[in-house]
Amino acid sequence: MDFEFDATTEDYRKRLLAFMDEHVYPAEASFHSDGWEPPAVLEELKSAAKAAGLWNLFLPGEHGAGLTNLQYAPLAEITGRSPAIAPAALNCNAPDTGNMEVLAEFGTAQQRERWLKPLLAGEIRSAFAMTEPQVASSDATNIGTRIERDGDEYVINGHKFFITGAMNPNCKIFIVMGKTDPDADRHVQQSQILVPRDTPGLTVKRGMTVFGYTDGDHGGHAELIFENVRVPATNLIGVEGGGFAISQARLGPGRIHHCMRLIGMAERALELMCTRALSRTPFGKPLAEQGVIQDWIAESRVRIEQARLLVLKAAWLMDTVGNKGAHTEIQSIKIVVPATVEWILDKAIQAHGAVGTSQDTPLAAIWVAARTLRLADGPDEVHKRSLARRELNRYRSRP
Amino acid sequence: MDFEFDATTEDYRKRLLAFMDEHVYPAEASFHSDGWEPPAVLEELKSAAKAAGLWNLFLPGEHGAGLTNLQYAPLAEITGRSPAIAPAALNCNAPDTGNMEVLAEFGTAQQRERWLKPLLAGEIRSAFAMTEPQVASSDATNIGTRIERDGDEYVINGHKFFITGAMNPNCKIFIVMGKTDPDADRHVQQSQILVPRDTPGLTVKRGMTVFGYTDGDHGGHAELIFENVRVPATNLIGVEGGGFAISQARLGPGRIHHCMRLIGMAERALELMCTRALSRTPFGKPLAEQGVIQDWIAESRVRIEQARLLVLKAAWLMDTVGNKGAHTEIQSIKIVVPATVEWILDKAIQAHGAVGTSQDTPLAAIWVAARTLRLADGPDEVHKRSLARRELNRYRSRP
Amino acid sequence: MDFEFDATTEDYRKRLLAFMDEHVYPAEASFHSDGWEPPAVLEELKSAAKAAGLWNLFLPGEHGAGLTNLQYAPLAEITGRSPAIAPAALNCNAPDTGNMEVLAEFGTAQQRERWLKPLLAGEIRSAFAMTEPQVASSDATNIGTRIERDGDEYVINGHKFFITGAMNPNCKIFIVMGKTDPDADRHVQQSQILVPRDTPGLTVKRGMTVFGYTDGDHGGHAELIFENVRVPATNLIGVEGGGFAISQARLGPGRIHHCMRLIGMAERALELMCTRALSRTPFGKPLAEQGVIQDWIAESRVRIEQARLLVLKAAWLMDTVGNKGAHTEIQSIKIVVPATVEWILDKAIQAHGAVGTSQDTPLAAIWVAARTLRLADGPDEVHKRSLARRELNRYRSRP
Amino acid sequence: MDFEFDATTEDYRKRLLAFMDEHVYPAEASFHSDGWEPPAVLEELKSAAKAAGLWNLFLPGEHGAGLTNLQYAPLAEITGRSPAIAPAALNCNAPDTGNMEVLAEFGTAQQRERWLKPLLAGEIRSAFAMTEPQVASSDATNIGTRIERDGDEYVINGHKFFITGAMNPNCKIFIVMGKTDPDADRHVQQSQILVPRDTPGLTVKRGMTVFGYTDGDHGGHAELIFENVRVPATNLIGVEGGGFAISQARLGPGRIHHCMRLIGMAERALELMCTRALSRTPFGKPLAEQGVIQDWIAESRVRIEQARLLVLKAAWLMDTVGNKGAHTEIQSIKIVVPATVEWILDKAIQAHGAVGTSQDTPLAAIWVAARTLRLADGPDEVHKRSLARRELNRYRSRP
Repeated sequence: MDFEFDATTEDYRKRLLAFMDEHVYPAEASFHSDGWEPPAVLEELKSAAKAAGLWNLFLPGEHGAGLTNLQYAPLAEITGRSPAIAPAALNCNAPDTGNMEVLAEFGTAQQRERWLKPLLAGEIRSAFAMTEPQVASSDATNIGTRIERDGDEYVINGHKFFITGAMNPNCKIFIVMGKTDPDADRHVQQSQILVPRDTPGLTVKRGMTVFGYTDGDHGGHAELIFENVRVPATNLIGVEGGGFAISQARLGPGRIHHCMRLIGMAERALELMCTRALSRTPFGKPLAEQGVIQDWIAESRVRIEQARLLVLKAAWLMDTVGNKGAHTEIQSIKIVVPATVEWILDKAIQAHGAVGTSQDTPLAAIWVAARTLRLADGPDEVHKRSLARRELNRYRSRP
Repeated sequence: MDFEFDATTEDYRKRLLAFMDEHVYPAEASFHSDGWEPPAVLEELKSAAKAAGLWNLFLPGEHGAGLTNLQYAPLAEITGRSPAIAPAALNCNAPDTGNMEVLAEFGTAQQRERWLKPLLAGEIRSAFAMTEPQVASSDATNIGTRIERDGDEYVINGHKFFITGAMNPNCKIFIVMGKTDPDADRHVQQSQILVPRDTPGLTVKRGMTVFGYTDGDHGGHAELIFENVRVPATNLIGVEGGGFAISQARLGPGRIHHCMRLIGMAERALELMCTRALSRTPFGKPLAEQGVIQDWIAESRVRIEQARLLVLKAAWLMDTVGNKGAHTEIQSIKIVVPATVEWILDKAIQAHGAVGTSQDTPLAAIWVAARTLRLADGPDEVHKRSLARRELNRYRSRP
Repeated sequence: MDFEFDATTEDYRKRLLAFMDEHVYPAEASFHSDGWEPPAVLEELKSAAKAAGLWNLFLPGEHGAGLTNLQYAPLAEITGRSPAIAPAALNCNAPDTGNMEVLAEFGTAQQRERWLKPLLAGEIRSAFAMTEPQVASSDATNIGTRIERDGDEYVINGHKFFITGAMNPNCKIFIVMGKTDPDADRHVQQSQILVPRDTPGLTVKRGMTVFGYTDGDHGGHAELIFENVRVPATNLIGVEGGGFAISQARLGPGRIHHCMRLIGMAERALELMCTRALSRTPFGKPLAEQGVIQDWIAESRVRIEQARLLVLKAAWLMDTVGNKGAHTEIQSIKIVVPATVEWILDKAIQAHGAVGTSQDTPLAAIWVAARTLRLADGPDEVHKRSLARRELNRYRSRP
Repeated sequence: MDFEFDATTEDYRKRLLAFMDEHVYPAEASFHSDGWEPPAVLEELKSAAKAAGLWNLFLPGEHGAGLTNLQYAPLAEITGRSPAIAPAALNCNAPDTGNMEVLAEFGTAQQRERWLKPLLAGEIRSAFAMTEPQVASSDATNIGTRIERDGDEYVINGHKFFITGAMNPNCKIFIVMGKTDPDADRHVQQSQILVPRDTPGLTVKRGMTVFGYTDGDHGGHAELIFENVRVPATNLIGVEGGGFAISQARLGPGRIHHCMRLIGMAERALELMCTRALSRTPFGKPLAEQGVIQDWIAESRVRIEQARLLVLKAAWLMDTVGNKGAHTEIQSIKIVVPATVEWILDKAIQAHGAVGTSQDTPLAAIWVAARTLRLADGPDEVHKRSLARRELNRYRSRP
């Protein structure tokens, strides 16, 4: 047992920290979009990241940096310190990362050439269309979108919303989850298929807001209508009925990434809480000497350390025993990290007073990011139930 | 001891509930503003409220409906069920209510004629400029804005932000808190003064966002710059050095109003949580039969009942022994009600999934309202400390 | 709506507070039993209570003081300030109070003469035998104890535990809950029957401890074995199959009493926390000036006020619309008051350091009383589910 | 970074787990003492532990098993599964472990021969007398006990309580903390000195209870009076004024041990919660299928994993950078582990109903152990403040 990062990780950390100081933090004040595209400065940041060898770090294997989950995790944490900018600058942003992983692992040569290549180059963006307004879509058997074979094509009909990134006109390709066979066994009813943005019948209807944010600089969260949308049969990813398995495969690394970025967000919030507490003096005593604020700071530090270690262990398990062996730990971090980080953000905001809720600090936007991750990929409650059942199963067979 | 509403209250409740059904809820879906003014439909709602005898209910005495705090409280609760519309429709919206109370109680005849009259008629809006960006302004001795006598005028210099309603061009008058004598005793350094919107030297700089919301339909939250702003000396409210006392006077009723509206928001959230839970069936079992959801519903009901009773008792105390005698209870509701209602909103959102965070339900906006009330009028922590000191004082003098 | 106590209540409160000062608090230091009987001083206290007209206050109607629930509630609160002594001194102690209520309401003239009379006189004690070790007995349909008719007798077989008071040799009579007809509808399977302590076949096996306490001075918590225990058929209370209804009837007042005593316990804890905080000075600053302690004190005050109001409202509802109309409120106080008071006790103990866990303050014993009431009469979770279902039912029939 | 135990640890774990199954769990049902000495079976267990090579595992270096903190931690966890028996059986019980460490590190050859030797052999027990009833002794500058030089002797006067183990007549030696120079700098006022049990002037007055428990089988928690107690000057440990430094040195390993045992207690509680949930069926549905119980189980698993990782990291830091470099982590585990484990125990008790509070499961006693560790070695609040100050200091020097 050893808690030290390896040399590769330390090297990347050093370079990434320098990149944050030189490029990312200075861009924060003016990083704002009134529409659905990222601010122009993002392209400069992407070039700088490429030049610094900090590009596609998330992707294992030949297409990306080739890091293990355990090596990438502390880097994802650092990008989480400036979550609106750094992940995008490094081409390590959700949902593109998951989409690239899926294409790299399950895509045909043609699909990889057509979509993975420009995504890896940062030329286009992508979206993953899973959530539906009419049903509790955390249960994939509820999905109403149909993907029906018709000759050499598939015909897609359905209604999706909260499709992150899809308002961005440069989001050129959607991976759509739907049912090819509603009568099959519950985990082979679904398939995933590639739908280019400009396909007839696909309407990008509106952006959903999230606690008032449009997230325009990140491509928003779109409502999509699919009406007899036709794509070539070759657009199917993997096999018919393989959609559920593919979505499970993407969740493992996805959660490591989300959770490590959340750790970085929490570190940023704690830093801001401390500097604020040192700078304000209501009622004749610095905030930093108020017992309640000190309690928040100590609790934050302790909770961050605990959460980080659990994410790192989950990453290590994925690397050593695979996603399935890491199931409990992956579910655990999904349960605990967003809630933990939301708590810390709440305290950092409270320590700031009104300004903490505004556009003048990153805190409110980060709070929203943490809060929504208690819902994304299925609400925590679904994961807790599943985890509890596995725990209970350990005792079922006993005499 | 008797927990029944009196006949006057019941009569108003009945009429107000009918008004909500007939006018307010139907307006919700389309009540949205892209700029800084309320949607046009608001004027129709105001006319309807006047016609229904549901106007200026908040104001005791001859200028308003003449209700006691205990009588008004359950009506404020009902308006809280649709907080973006109902309070404005009834001319019972913060910060105008507090401003009208101040003018009615402390204003000169001329001030009342010039500003109170159009406010009571719902013709103009107003703002209260207290919070400052540079200091912890929950401590009034920190306030940096200066109000200096110069002949027949006062000259105002300062910097304010989060001035609710002030982005609305129809917000014609600001009550500004500043220091007339920084060297006086701590609670007589401040004064309050009327500053018309169009006074030279006053810049309405920008709107602050609150968790992504501009609150444009409510007049936003402005940043204001005062540079050698000159107003006639007759614009002073009350006497020099009376500013702190006036602001204390407005806080009592203000908190009853806020807290009772919060109770209504919580009831709305609980209703939405229940109807959602009855309508969705993930994993083969209705949400309404999930133990965790039932736990949230039961906890919400219990917490709402407790919070409501405490607010009603605080209102009763204000009516019977006055604001000072009700100090502990007023502080108590400020401490407990926003946090309680925030918790309920969080659970209602979680039960809704992603849509609960969006513009398609009122939940996210209500959550923000509750969350910010943990900060408004001083963070909870300031009030807890004050309340604790009074509690401790009961034991100090004992042998 | 009116939050003032009536004159009768105020008169009793004054006299009871004087009795506490004069008799109860002075007895606390030495009130300790090594066996299963109360300390000898209790008989003196009982005489004093009778002399002061503070006897059987809990009992409405001709047999007792004739107070309403709303009038008795604030008196029960006061006795909760010294919970090991005051309720017993006033003959207002569970489970005797519930047993007396049951006998007064459902007992035959003979049963009342034989058992109610000496209980009202404080000459004997009683127990209520419901909980069973083998089953989840919060669900009455699980009860395994059998009460079978055999000629003029009933024969009882079963196993009970946590039967409060039953270790006291002066506990002369047990009301036993069991099944007369296991095949009947779920709520008419059970009956209640009187079993004198010395009946052959009844074994008082041992005392159960509760977080280390034997509660010997309160008669402990016994494990009982019933083996072919025979009692005359006239010992049945009410009718065969009426046991569940009787147990429901006793729960309403029982919860008011428990919860109001808990409020008194919390007030005592808050008082001790404040006096401790004023008396200790670690690290150069009095505990009373530590922000975290102040936070606990403020939260305690706010939570107590909320809880008390809800209990009083539940009592008022029982008086005005009956137990059934007060169902939600009775369940609410069972859910919220023990948990609230447990929290306050935890903080009071923490403020005391190690001594707070010991025999040198009443805090640890009171904590245990609060904690166990989260379990007694069915765990909170059962009541939350039931309350949630009623809340949900309000929306089921809607279109 | 690597999360696997090394081979030595795995070997010890295997042997210790077997020892638990073979010797410890079977002894649980009858392990009970009515007085102040451990049950007779303990001596058999100690012999078996010696025979199995599981003796003095806690002690690094030549006197003990020579394990690192990281190696010993998972073994301490296993002993925590049966906390009343296993640590004592392995001679790894507090406070003896800390006393042995102090004697091994700071004791003279004579002191080691006279006291360390029989302690290492498990022939006698010891106590550490620090806490005082009159002052907030978490602040060592408050300590009132005096240790005054008089010729070749020291004279000790003072009053201590909660001195764990000291009621056991076989507790032959006390390490006493007191002031040799009250006027010195705050951290060199104190000294530690050896006082044999039978020294004239030392009175073992009574046992303090902890939530009703005497902890008799662990030697209780004594109140001690020192009246002109004289011991040879050679009984001083280390140098005059070194007492504070010695007590700091013992805290590092002590917290690792306590916290790892707490992890084991939590695992035991979770196991019991699961098996209970699988065995009970109130209201027609197994507890194990109740959503609220599943939530507790999932939360427990997640919290345990987080806590364990943090303790292991603290142990690793102590081994690699020393106690001082591990200061934040040692403080962190003291803050988070007892509170976490207390929460889990509370849920396990609640899932058991009344029996969970009794002598028929280990849960209530373990709850008390966790609860008191929120107070022992200084309340959590003191540690949070200290940790927060270090966190804040990171930002003080910034421009």
